[in-house]
Amino acid sequence: MTRSDPHPAYVAVDWGTSSFRLWLIGQDGGVLAERRSAEGMTVAARTGFAGVLASHLAAISAPAGLPVLICGMAGAKQGWVEAGYLDTPAALAAIPAAAVRIPGVDADIRILPGLAQRDAAAPDVMRGEETQLLGAAGELGSGDHLVCMPGTHSKWVRLSGGRVEGFSTFMTGELFDAIAKNTILSHAIAEAGAVQGDNAAFRAAVKRMVDNPALATSQLFSVRAGSLIAGLSPDDAKARLSGTLIGLEIAGALSMVAEGTPVALVVSGGLGAPYRQALAAAGLSPFVIDADTAVRNGLAAGARALWSL
Amino acid sequence: MTRSDPHPAYVAVDWGTSSFRLWLIGQDGGVLAERRSAEGMTVAARTGFAGVLASHLAAISAPAGLPVLICGMAGAKQGWVEAGYLDTPAALAAIPAAAVRIPGVDADIRILPGLAQRDAAAPDVMRGEETQLLGAAGELGSGDHLVCMPGTHSKWVRLSGGRVEGFSTFMTGELFDAIAKNTILSHAIAEAGAVQGDNAAFRAAVKRMVDNPALATSQLFSVRAGSLIAGLSPDDAKARLSGTLIGLEIAGALSMVAEGTPVALVVSGGLGAPYRQALAAAGLSPFVIDADTAVRNGLAAGARALWSL
Repeated sequence: MTRSDPHPAYVAVDWGTSSFRLWLIGQDGGVLAERRSAEGMTVAARTGFAGVLASHLAAISAPAGLPVLICGMAGAKQGWVEAGYLDTPAALAAIPAAAVRIPGVDADIRILPGLAQRDAAAPDVMRGEETQLLGAAGELGSGDHLVCMPGTHSKWVRLSGGRVEGFSTFMTGELFDAIAKNTILSHAIAEAGAVQGDNAAFRAAVKRMVDNPALATSQLFSVRAGSLIAGLSPDDAKARLSGTLIGLEIAGALSMVAEGTPVALVVSGGLGAPYRQALAAAGLSPFVIDADTAVRNGLAAGARALWSL
Repeated sequence: MTRSDPHPAYVAVDWGTSSFRLWLIGQDGGVLAERRSAEGMTVAARTGFAGVLASHLAAISAPAGLPVLICGMAGAKQGWVEAGYLDTPAALAAIPAAAVRIPGVDADIRILPGLAQRDAAAPDVMRGEETQLLGAAGELGSGDHLVCMPGTHSKWVRLSGGRVEGFSTFMTGELFDAIAKNTILSHAIAEAGAVQGDNAAFRAAVKRMVDNPALATSQLFSVRAGSLIAGLSPDDAKARLSGTLIGLEIAGALSMVAEGTPVALVVSGGLGAPYRQALAAAGLSPFVIDADTAVRNGLAAGARALWSL
């Protein structure tokens, strides 16, 4: 944009561990400008959060003094200012009011809190996904929903009438990387390409996990054994590894809700295809919501609640 | 021993990936001398298998020309001479006759084969554990048994009247290392000591996996979340990681046999205490067999069958 563009109302920021995204939003709710960079929390904790934000605001010639609403890891203990957690069960509508204001600056800059499940047997936390949920809730009806947000740490949320009843984080993406790189399975998949969601080995691995999740770490070893004695190709080996971990996650999530609970998939980018295929292999037909849109809608809902915008 | 010691009959060798163990056995079945070193397959593949064996035989002044029976990774494709696999279902008594003789040497040196399960959905292999089984079978009655052999790659074997009906490998030990070192859980357990089998967090993690194995990768994340918001100590965090993986393994093994099948635990060293505690937490009372003794007894059974010793 240039200074002559009309009516900017606020700035929305999704500040993750390794990524930074900023939108300048107009008074009609439209996106006037957008910035993306790799200056996530890890980088900004070294270079300074205030400076990173200021540089991006300057790059789009944002008017001084606009309110800024931030979600994500900028509110972690290692972030800019700690924004704490709302405890579950938590109404999504209660999230904006719990935002923490950055002290010592003129502009009204706030960071949304995460959610915490303080359950001795299953403690859990999220930070950033609560804002996607807030945005996705507008597209979901009332009633019960099971919401899947895939990622390095996939979140599955039990939503009931706009309240987060509970949630579980599955280490799927991080385990995939750790196992693919640091175990004997690395030999079997070394020459594989990207996992294709329409791979039969992938779907079969998902299905077996939904049927008998207890065999997860045995099915992982079968990637190695299949490569040794059954001619399993590198592509199929990688698909079996991915399908095992995603299928185990789906089995776990389904174990927490009543059969027939509608499933929503909030996803963007490369994880969409494999998760859609995996859910289909598990017999589920999810309602799909774009994650990028959801986080922007969540920040917009927050801005409306905080500043009557 | 010295050259004046009486009546050596044969040499038994357990040649693993990272360890080498050799016993000189007398005509009465007693151990006359023993050697242990770190010259496993990985080292010997570089320095030469024949040389490693010869150096240890020389160190105990073994008479020239004694027959040598070897089990383990020396028979792998990357080993000394490939000893192939017997396919399941396989009678344990058929293992010795399938040993492969080292060509081009005067002495009768043979390597026992592994076992292969050529099942498209659950291909699996073992190499070395079949010899432990052969040795353990003498201590087990006839009938059905579920045999647990813990390790980097834990093996659970369905044994029926001396036949291996099928088996499953669980990547428990290797996953523990990969997850402890290469994921976000490393922070939670960085300052932990060795896992104690009598740790309540360990037993609770095992029990939860036996009750709902589908939540495995979520329970792994709870190690991180518990450390963040519930004051989980490093020792308890490490115990929960270990208990989750061992409990998942037990749940998977139990899913493959009829309820009430007697369980045997073949184990030596540091894994004995945690596996005994884990099996107890799962409500099982295993018959315990020493793994070192079992492999030596298995090699002895092989030597008797091959050379009428």
